[in-house]
Amino acid sequence: MPLDSPKDPTIAAKAALDPENFALANCIRALSIDAVNAANSGHPGAPMGMADAAAVLFGKHLKFDAKHPDWPNRDRFVLSNGHASMMLYSALYLTGYEDMTLDQVKNFRQWGSITAGHPEYGHAKGVEATTGPLGQGIAMAVGMALAERQLAAEFGDDIVDHHTYVFLGDGCLQEGIGQEAISLAGHLGLGKLVVLYDDNSITIDGPTSVSFSEDVPARLAACGWHVQSCDGHDGKALDKAITAAKAETGKPSLIAMKTVIGFGSPNKAGSYAVHGSPLGKDEAALTKEALGWTAAPFDIPQNLLDQWRAIGVRGAKEREEWEARLAAKPAEVKAEFIRRDERKLPEGYDAAVKAARDALFAEPKKAATRKASQMALEPLTAAVPEMIGGSADLTGSNLTRVKAVDSQYTREAPGRYIGYGVREFGMSAAMNGISLHGGFIPYGGTFLVFSDYARNAIRLSALMGLGTIYVMTHDSIGLGEDGPTHQPIEHLASLRAIPGLTVFRPADTVETLEAWDIAIRNRHVPSLMALSRQDVPQLRLEAGDENLTAKGAYVLRQFGEGRDVTLIATGTEVAIAVEAAEALHADGVSVAVVSMPSWELFDAQPEDYRKATLGDAPRIAIEAAGKFGWTRYVASEDDVIGMTGFGASAPIDRLYQEFGITKEAIVARAKALSGK
Amino acid sequence: MPLDSPKDPTIAAKAALDPENFALANCIRALSIDAVNAANSGHPGAPMGMADAAAVLFGKHLKFDAKHPDWPNRDRFVLSNGHASMMLYSALYLTGYEDMTLDQVKNFRQWGSITAGHPEYGHAKGVEATTGPLGQGIAMAVGMALAERQLAAEFGDDIVDHHTYVFLGDGCLQEGIGQEAISLAGHLGLGKLVVLYDDNSITIDGPTSVSFSEDVPARLAACGWHVQSCDGHDGKALDKAITAAKAETGKPSLIAMKTVIGFGSPNKAGSYAVHGSPLGKDEAALTKEALGWTAAPFDIPQNLLDQWRAIGVRGAKEREEWEARLAAKPAEVKAEFIRRDERKLPEGYDAAVKAARDALFAEPKKAATRKASQMALEPLTAAVPEMIGGSADLTGSNLTRVKAVDSQYTREAPGRYIGYGVREFGMSAAMNGISLHGGFIPYGGTFLVFSDYARNAIRLSALMGLGTIYVMTHDSIGLGEDGPTHQPIEHLASLRAIPGLTVFRPADTVETLEAWDIAIRNRHVPSLMALSRQDVPQLRLEAGDENLTAKGAYVLRQFGEGRDVTLIATGTEVAIAVEAAEALHADGVSVAVVSMPSWELFDAQPEDYRKATLGDAPRIAIEAAGKFGWTRYVASEDDVIGMTGFGASAPIDRLYQEFGITKEAIVARAKALSGK
Repeated sequence: MPLDSPKDPTIAAKAALDPENFALANCIRALSIDAVNAANSGHPGAPMGMADAAAVLFGKHLKFDAKHPDWPNRDRFVLSNGHASMMLYSALYLTGYEDMTLDQVKNFRQWGSITAGHPEYGHAKGVEATTGPLGQGIAMAVGMALAERQLAAEFGDDIVDHHTYVFLGDGCLQEGIGQEAISLAGHLGLGKLVVLYDDNSITIDGPTSVSFSEDVPARLAACGWHVQSCDGHDGKALDKAITAAKAETGKPSLIAMKTVIGFGSPNKAGSYAVHGSPLGKDEAALTKEALGWTAAPFDIPQNLLDQWRAIGVRGAKEREEWEARLAAKPAEVKAEFIRRDERKLPEGYDAAVKAARDALFAEPKKAATRKASQMALEPLTAAVPEMIGGSADLTGSNLTRVKAVDSQYTREAPGRYIGYGVREFGMSAAMNGISLHGGFIPYGGTFLVFSDYARNAIRLSALMGLGTIYVMTHDSIGLGEDGPTHQPIEHLASLRAIPGLTVFRPADTVETLEAWDIAIRNRHVPSLMALSRQDVPQLRLEAGDENLTAKGAYVLRQFGEGRDVTLIATGTEVAIAVEAAEALHADGVSVAVVSMPSWELFDAQPEDYRKATLGDAPRIAIEAAGKFGWTRYVASEDDVIGMTGFGASAPIDRLYQEFGITKEAIVARAKALSGK
Repeated sequence: MPLDSPKDPTIAAKAALDPENFALANCIRALSIDAVNAANSGHPGAPMGMADAAAVLFGKHLKFDAKHPDWPNRDRFVLSNGHASMMLYSALYLTGYEDMTLDQVKNFRQWGSITAGHPEYGHAKGVEATTGPLGQGIAMAVGMALAERQLAAEFGDDIVDHHTYVFLGDGCLQEGIGQEAISLAGHLGLGKLVVLYDDNSITIDGPTSVSFSEDVPARLAACGWHVQSCDGHDGKALDKAITAAKAETGKPSLIAMKTVIGFGSPNKAGSYAVHGSPLGKDEAALTKEALGWTAAPFDIPQNLLDQWRAIGVRGAKEREEWEARLAAKPAEVKAEFIRRDERKLPEGYDAAVKAARDALFAEPKKAATRKASQMALEPLTAAVPEMIGGSADLTGSNLTRVKAVDSQYTREAPGRYIGYGVREFGMSAAMNGISLHGGFIPYGGTFLVFSDYARNAIRLSALMGLGTIYVMTHDSIGLGEDGPTHQPIEHLASLRAIPGLTVFRPADTVETLEAWDIAIRNRHVPSLMALSRQDVPQLRLEAGDENLTAKGAYVLRQFGEGRDVTLIATGTEVAIAVEAAEALHADGVSVAVVSMPSWELFDAQPEDYRKATLGDAPRIAIEAAGKFGWTRYVASEDDVIGMTGFGASAPIDRLYQEFGITKEAIVARAKALSGK
């Protein structure tokens, strides 16, 4: 029961619809108001408007155990409108997550707290995904729901059987990625995905009528969703709607909740003024009075806290029963489930890598690195059953589909290959969701140039520390006739600029295999492979078990004694550098050719290794991409054989010639630099 | 009439629906087949499937004059599924665009031809936009339709009154940006936008059922569109549908055309095999036989070519009438229309800039650079009536709305301020469309971090050479508590890496005004402003008319004789560099502080100016962003005071302290480097 009757008759009428839920919701409202006021920064409006729904969801539906936040079979909850973070932190504190202390709530948005301005994965338990960049939360939730279904198919629905719930607002529905996620979820019939839409008619710029006038339920129905509408402040109606959403197992569900942003605030409710600014002391007092809330700031009356804490352990019994079921499974099934949950690689993995290496050395292959990637994927996906592939409608170009994953994920049955459609951003965010869910290593393909479309999801992979793997083919002007819209120029630099992402541009079959090996092992670092359309010779011919790509760069060839010049190249240009080095050597110039498949890995090497590899002689970099950033390794961009502008539409050989990325250009520059 | 009756009874039945249109369409099909075969690369399927619709659109509806391709009141046609480029090139050749010779068609996808793999704006007349990156074509078309409506409101619909037509495929509808554009167009009721959807049930990965099962017409109806469906090979039905679409003036129109990809090919029609590969010689022959086409490759029978050429000049009379109407306008109206069409600035512009400069020097202001931007926009938008503003739902944060543009663009009436909604990508592509249309200088705002969402549209601004202006605020960790999802780190570097884009990060009110001045003058180069949330002092105090920002970098302060060290800083860190320089000078170190608001403009300066500005002394760069790329100007990233990873959620001062972007850090590094 509320502490006092709401003073405002409109509020009282809402409270009367489900008084118990209203009281629980007021706890969220009060904490959100207080924390945002204390930080003097933040977004109180959405938590206040969605508090009733949060109380119903956490109180009656969400399967979780606050004392065991990592229980694999918990329901997932994603706050896609991440600016409403205080709603989530409030719920976590109230339900008794141990790390979410009242002090953390009081330190909302402060240095070193786990209560960041937007929910950050890895900070507080119960935060299932980093959200804030709008639209990505629902797309990650789609990934979680995808993962749940496939994992259930593999381990049985007595072990894997949970829902994925999403809260979102107008912003997530306006962002294109939201539609990509909605469309994919509807197509695949992800029946355990339940989305609650905070339909408050307000965005930052004012009423949604400024920019948004869709019939959202009709749009989602057109995309194959089960849709309902209800009063977002009526606990009973919300309970009924969520129950109905769970009953619909063949379609994802949308519940459009009509809400009032800043619910309870006498002067700011229903206005964009309450979206992103604190209520302030006076309005906070008026709001609490209107809500009938008499407790001191940050204080939750004991009876309400007790109710919330009971909610926090509501799932304990279910968790224990689940543990018993898991324990009763055959030992190898149980071990396999735990292995995958712990993100450890299977036993046969090392042997599979070694066999693939040995085969390459036994019979060297000339191949495009996208083809080399496919060759690596064949044995690795067979050895690693948690690898789950896909492409944004470029399967035949990305070469991401191989035998072990050759089971299409459909509405009828899940599988290990996902046709993400022409939805690069949605794919990337969904892969992050699969990574977050656990049990899988997702990889997905598109053209490197379209990394632009997916860029913020790649950033979130890095920010969250997820081992998502991006397969980006057609990685230079080498793709030829499709022309400048399809030829990446600035993309390698712009991806290398993202902190925490490992970018690979392997030179041949061996480096591509090595890159895959590193990417698969890196369960907490995202990897991006830039792979060629065109063939390259195998340059690594000397058998051995050392993964040289793991060093980021290494001396691939040495011609002559000492060095007059060092050629540093990546990917398809390493072969050109080797040809140039041969020509230079014939002319009496001593040359080392350094293959540099990954800047990030090289920069992480000890200084003496880096110095020895780069050498003291003048250096030239060769890469069929923009020169930006190469001055990290060479003296000036004049020493980079690369692109200075956009590409063009023409056959590949003509393009390399016209843009001067040739053996002759390397030789000329090397002679000028070395004075030989 | 066709040359011969189609041999295939299904095809014959389609042909019988509108024999004349079928014959015209076969010209497009034949040329597309031949050009793709000759290039041995390209996409024949879509041109073959959409040829009937193209024949109806060009033949009966599109208002254009092939001899005057730049006529301002022509209808705009955007091929959003740009891979179908041969459909467009065929139509341009057939209708007699002078630059589109048969030789150009024969040189499809070859170096130096205007017939690039995907349509490239500025290569061939009649290509209204560069397309290929899916979804952006329709979004640019939305911008064109937006521009048309506002221009008509300003100059009268006797001078401005045209439609914008779009062809698109499944890919454009799967891409999120497609939905952003659809949603915005529906919201604003852009009744002169007509979209023809090539509903061929095929994407690259196979049938659309792999990844796409929406009810597209229902989705668009939910977004406020007028929707129709028809047989895409029935010329009469298409004509009727386009006529009905034009009659609906309050809503944008979708015509879902059921088509067969690769229509006519006996063995490949209806299959993804015809999407992106040449038919080959044998199948080409079989196809032509099936279509009843007996002419030699690249040959168009004279009677058909005559018909097409007549279509090409169908609009001549209308154009002449339009010219007469324009000539009859009052001289100043006519002159103003021509000025805007020619992208020349108005007469009062220079004076407005000078007055704004003088005011800043007369009364220096401490202000966030986003506020400085607003201060600049006030007089400049008043002086330049073609400036049209907007924001992706962050107006109050971006400060993009000022008095002269304070007329909201709504469904009821256009205006100079567009609420783009939470649609950064859609906004950016729409701004490109506005730029392409002519008559306007579009600018629009979001947070710098969300440049990620819009990135490929920014790239297209640069590739097309458009003067679109991006206002990106909250440009560093300086935004504070919103945390790492909202704090740009790698964005400056990744934007500087885009060829042809000018990135500005101004330090104060004066540099911000100067940046705006450059951006407005640059009608063929896009500009991006990185602007601060936090206040900075005005550092430029010496009155004068020279735009120093135009040099990209310049010595802002000199302390002592000569230089022991040079500090290079941008944006909000210039003030910190000045403080550090003062402290160093007090300790006997001679220092120059170089403010560098734009790398691109600096790199375009003569070598002697660059050398003099950077100096020979050791250099330190200071920027609250990732260090990537700064080795262009400093010896090593150790000499960059910047970020090495992501930011955090905390108040601004704490963040600068914790991340070591401080006066003290600069002083320490300067002393170490200078040995003083």
